[in-house]
Amino acid sequence: MRVITAGILGAGRIGKIHANNLMAMTGVRLKAIADPYVDFKEWPGPAVATSKNPEDVLKDPEIEAVLVCSPTPSHAEFTEAAAKVGKHVFCEKPIAVDAERVRATLETVKRSGVKLQEGFNRRFDPTFARVRRAVADGEVGDVQLVRITARDPAAPPIEYVKSSGGMFADMTIHDFDMVRFLSGSEVEEVHAYGAVLVDPAIGVAGDIDTAVISMRLSNGALAVIENSRQAVFGYDQRIEVFGSKGGIEAFNETPARTVLRSGAGVRHENPLYFFLERYQRSFVLELEAFFASIRGDREPPAGGNDGLMALLIVLAAKQSLLENRPVRVEKPASIASKKG
Amino acid sequence: MRVITAGILGAGRIGKIHANNLMAMTGVRLKAIADPYVDFKEWPGPAVATSKNPEDVLKDPEIEAVLVCSPTPSHAEFTEAAAKVGKHVFCEKPIAVDAERVRATLETVKRSGVKLQEGFNRRFDPTFARVRRAVADGEVGDVQLVRITARDPAAPPIEYVKSSGGMFADMTIHDFDMVRFLSGSEVEEVHAYGAVLVDPAIGVAGDIDTAVISMRLSNGALAVIENSRQAVFGYDQRIEVFGSKGGIEAFNETPARTVLRSGAGVRHENPLYFFLERYQRSFVLELEAFFASIRGDREPPAGGNDGLMALLIVLAAKQSLLENRPVRVEKPASIASKKG
Amino acid sequence: MRVITAGILGAGRIGKIHANNLMAMTGVRLKAIADPYVDFKEWPGPAVATSKNPEDVLKDPEIEAVLVCSPTPSHAEFTEAAAKVGKHVFCEKPIAVDAERVRATLETVKRSGVKLQEGFNRRFDPTFARVRRAVADGEVGDVQLVRITARDPAAPPIEYVKSSGGMFADMTIHDFDMVRFLSGSEVEEVHAYGAVLVDPAIGVAGDIDTAVISMRLSNGALAVIENSRQAVFGYDQRIEVFGSKGGIEAFNETPARTVLRSGAGVRHENPLYFFLERYQRSFVLELEAFFASIRGDREPPAGGNDGLMALLIVLAAKQSLLENRPVRVEKPASIASKKG
Amino acid sequence: MRVITAGILGAGRIGKIHANNLMAMTGVRLKAIADPYVDFKEWPGPAVATSKNPEDVLKDPEIEAVLVCSPTPSHAEFTEAAAKVGKHVFCEKPIAVDAERVRATLETVKRSGVKLQEGFNRRFDPTFARVRRAVADGEVGDVQLVRITARDPAAPPIEYVKSSGGMFADMTIHDFDMVRFLSGSEVEEVHAYGAVLVDPAIGVAGDIDTAVISMRLSNGALAVIENSRQAVFGYDQRIEVFGSKGGIEAFNETPARTVLRSGAGVRHENPLYFFLERYQRSFVLELEAFFASIRGDREPPAGGNDGLMALLIVLAAKQSLLENRPVRVEKPASIASKKG
Repeated sequence: MRVITAGILGAGRIGKIHANNLMAMTGVRLKAIADPYVDFKEWPGPAVATSKNPEDVLKDPEIEAVLVCSPTPSHAEFTEAAAKVGKHVFCEKPIAVDAERVRATLETVKRSGVKLQEGFNRRFDPTFARVRRAVADGEVGDVQLVRITARDPAAPPIEYVKSSGGMFADMTIHDFDMVRFLSGSEVEEVHAYGAVLVDPAIGVAGDIDTAVISMRLSNGALAVIENSRQAVFGYDQRIEVFGSKGGIEAFNETPARTVLRSGAGVRHENPLYFFLERYQRSFVLELEAFFASIRGDREPPAGGNDGLMALLIVLAAKQSLLENRPVRVEKPASIASKKG
Repeated sequence: MRVITAGILGAGRIGKIHANNLMAMTGVRLKAIADPYVDFKEWPGPAVATSKNPEDVLKDPEIEAVLVCSPTPSHAEFTEAAAKVGKHVFCEKPIAVDAERVRATLETVKRSGVKLQEGFNRRFDPTFARVRRAVADGEVGDVQLVRITARDPAAPPIEYVKSSGGMFADMTIHDFDMVRFLSGSEVEEVHAYGAVLVDPAIGVAGDIDTAVISMRLSNGALAVIENSRQAVFGYDQRIEVFGSKGGIEAFNETPARTVLRSGAGVRHENPLYFFLERYQRSFVLELEAFFASIRGDREPPAGGNDGLMALLIVLAAKQSLLENRPVRVEKPASIASKKG
Repeated sequence: MRVITAGILGAGRIGKIHANNLMAMTGVRLKAIADPYVDFKEWPGPAVATSKNPEDVLKDPEIEAVLVCSPTPSHAEFTEAAAKVGKHVFCEKPIAVDAERVRATLETVKRSGVKLQEGFNRRFDPTFARVRRAVADGEVGDVQLVRITARDPAAPPIEYVKSSGGMFADMTIHDFDMVRFLSGSEVEEVHAYGAVLVDPAIGVAGDIDTAVISMRLSNGALAVIENSRQAVFGYDQRIEVFGSKGGIEAFNETPARTVLRSGAGVRHENPLYFFLERYQRSFVLELEAFFASIRGDREPPAGGNDGLMALLIVLAAKQSLLENRPVRVEKPASIASKKG
Repeated sequence: MRVITAGILGAGRIGKIHANNLMAMTGVRLKAIADPYVDFKEWPGPAVATSKNPEDVLKDPEIEAVLVCSPTPSHAEFTEAAAKVGKHVFCEKPIAVDAERVRATLETVKRSGVKLQEGFNRRFDPTFARVRRAVADGEVGDVQLVRITARDPAAPPIEYVKSSGGMFADMTIHDFDMVRFLSGSEVEEVHAYGAVLVDPAIGVAGDIDTAVISMRLSNGALAVIENSRQAVFGYDQRIEVFGSKGGIEAFNETPARTVLRSGAGVRHENPLYFFLERYQRSFVLELEAFFASIRGDREPPAGGNDGLMALLIVLAAKQSLLENRPVRVEKPASIASKKG
């Protein structure tokens, strides 16, 4: 297998996870990680060359692929910078919170001819990938309904909420992507109900913590997502795809597979605590897929357009919530035309 | 236990089920069943006095309670007739498809001082009753979300569809009642997406076969129902109530409790085939509750108002589907006032 | 369906259960119940003619079938008495605790030409019947292993233990019958390990409360039963039959089908409390099968020979426990020959 | 974390697995792997120094720890050789198939003062470790019964069977270790039933393919293992520990967590195919524990004595099968005294 040399921009939580995964990955050499805001003397990540200067990664001729793990506001800039110097890019989602900015970045990437993969890691989760395979192989027939339950174990700090772009952009965006990924269809229209039931402070900050979002898809099927910022029993990530030949349901993963029967009842394992535990394997698999795309010179399995589409659904859902009415999802083409 | 003498109006499918259940019930004597349209020589029900004339039941002074199991259009009339002669009434749902007609019947019943129970049998299903108990006992904390999946094993004949009053009136009405029953809240607003995905003939008949209905409840919680007229693997009746302290989920019941592991995979039992099998026990328990209410002179656990409320939600959901917008559920008071 | 008139001898716990079930059963008329030791003024059973004198049942010419529900020491005598006057007999197990006595009774029954069914109710449990069907239909291929876990929710009173005939005769006998029923094979040899781990008083009374019994079957397969007098989480009744094409496993039944997820974990329903709840349905179904055998003039599905075989396994297991060695199960033929 | 330099003897299947795991492990440097019988030009393992000569590993002063992954007959010799030059040893099980040989090796290891861990990887499986924790934490109270079901997906080639030392030495030894590990007790006596039900050729080769082995433990509890060389639905590895306060059961792990409902039934995922998949994680965790023992200068969690004890149970089970009687497990002390 051809060894690809990679660099990382951003040494925060997700940057460190990717760094560790690359160190253990066959066929990839992690050469350097750069972050202007990190004190690398204290850094708990693996032993790799570090730098305060992103240019050290972007200008290194050996580095063929760049992982953009910096804060969201710099995603588009770094993605474009890397693409312009001919480096393939894996960018954490979203590229930008502004659809027009995303579209512009995608055009830059397209012109430069490099691969771009976006960090929709859940597509690579073995359980969800099995669900997708069932759909793709026709095991459930024509898709008629996608249902996603996604609940966090605890609400984030209120400061995080304030800068999160809202629950739909921060949390539901993953579920919107799963609706598209699992159904193989586009979301055409969305209706969102939201509520503040977990923590009044979230409402004061202008956000919601509970939602039911229903959708109409381009193939005629329906979809529904329920979100909560807090399930006291842990991270709740369940999916069902139902169709003309049956349905496939994905359950929560657990740290072990046991049942404890006692005077206190029949107790099964709690779900894995949060996304780092639940989607641990998917972070490895998404990068393996990214590097395989580079080696095989083919489109990455979760490209920039997927990020754009998810963002457009987020925007429609926000508007639906605001105006309490179903809202059609804008088409990427109409963005382009508006620009022109 | 005081023995109560009962009669039945209507000897069709549900009439026969109730007749059999009454025969095996302690504390109840089924004296007669009347149906003008049934040839009792061929009738497969239990050995009980039969008649072509409903008056034989309504005028029998020994009969203290009447079960109205006739076709829907005669429900209101028979309920009123029985109430007026001082007989307690158990009426299959709905009393009428017109809210004003229902309200009028409820007033007649109220004036006559008899008990009225409506056939919302699912409230008595042991699994759903356990869910309700968990909510009532505070085991899930404050209710934040109710989710109901309800799918029939096969679409009904198209003739049935045409006269059914539409999927919401025919099928979803049970789920609307469950939302109210389980949450202990009223439905304030509803948004419905519908589709024809199972059988185009259903669309031609002016109905839908697939739906996602989302709701806002009076306590601030949200609810969502997904319906399908056809799940090829059988009757799919699942519920989840989620709240501030956790969630309780109800699974499908099965004829036995086994798993068969073979070269063809790991196979669990299919769901019980349809509502007669799945809710068999609930048909017994609802009648036991009805007769217990008479004996104890207290309100039946599923009264006429519950039927009226479910009907008002159906009407709002129909309007939402038609106009593709969220619709507020009318209040019973406003019906009364409109009348006045 | 031809109505069969029946009588019951013995109005204790199981007699009352059968009486109630017969009252609700189509095609059967329960005419009388007799018990010399019961004060029928206080009797909580159904409204039926009662008597202190068993002869009132045995001599009633209308009564075609007798259910022997008296204490075990009178089973053989009543069975023979009923058979001699040409009445079909349903006898609670065991007919006697002495194999020779059982054999003699079976001969009497055979000569009289009546039907004899023994109360191996578990064969009629819908879940275990499903397991048997899987085996009979070849779904698991050739049987290679039968495993039974059978645990009571709490140890019986020590007085009961003393007169129970030992755990194997009192409790394991059901499991021995299941091994034969499910495998369709005879038990040829048995090895038993026993221990006193639940309550030392049981050991003082000369019995055990925990056991692992392994067996070699006539078709070459193996079997193993584990018993405990106390599972603090409730009645634990699980079975697995494993074979050349796969395995089928039977789980515990529960009062409802829910999972409650909370801060205290993910809790499934406890098993149904004890045999009255767990095997409720089987008590009805075994009687329906008994009366169907009479109507159809065919062998009952659990006859006297099944009781004899189970008893012979009990005796071998007792000897194995005593001598700590595998013991071959005696053949019914050898009992007969010893007699001669 | 202090980095420990390690070498591997034996580059076959398990050697390669350990090599890959060490490459990805923090705090360990794999310096070399030696195997006289492997053509390293074709070797699919990781990029590491290779040699035909074990001495290159044993004599390398940098190498602090040696993993013995060679064929079983050389385990004792390599373990002793490594211990004598002061290297810590991780040895695949068993050290030898002769108890006296094992005892002698353990003495050599003891004299040299190095750590010795044996490859009882299943102790480190997250699910089984959870079971052990439940027992150790008193969640099931006093252990009364341990039950293990262990079935391979397919019988090994007949040549393998012939040189395997018999099913108990090859397969059940893992389960014997689990009985000791989970119960925290020693096996005192064993009774084994065996049969040839999967493949007659296995019988011709002098072995069995199906077994039920029951045991009496030193704390008074009982245990039972059922083994089969072939479960057509896949690797079946289930465990239950039952005690005075309840029971904990371990289920099969699956590649994903889904249920597929279709016209063909309700299908859950098959078990992970075989031990490489099922116990993948345990191979990593056992090595992490080994190196942590070296760093912390404490006893490894699965030492040489555990291997010896498991071997002594194997020998007793073999004798039991041969003589069809319960056999007491020899004590390590008696081996030593016999030697003297």
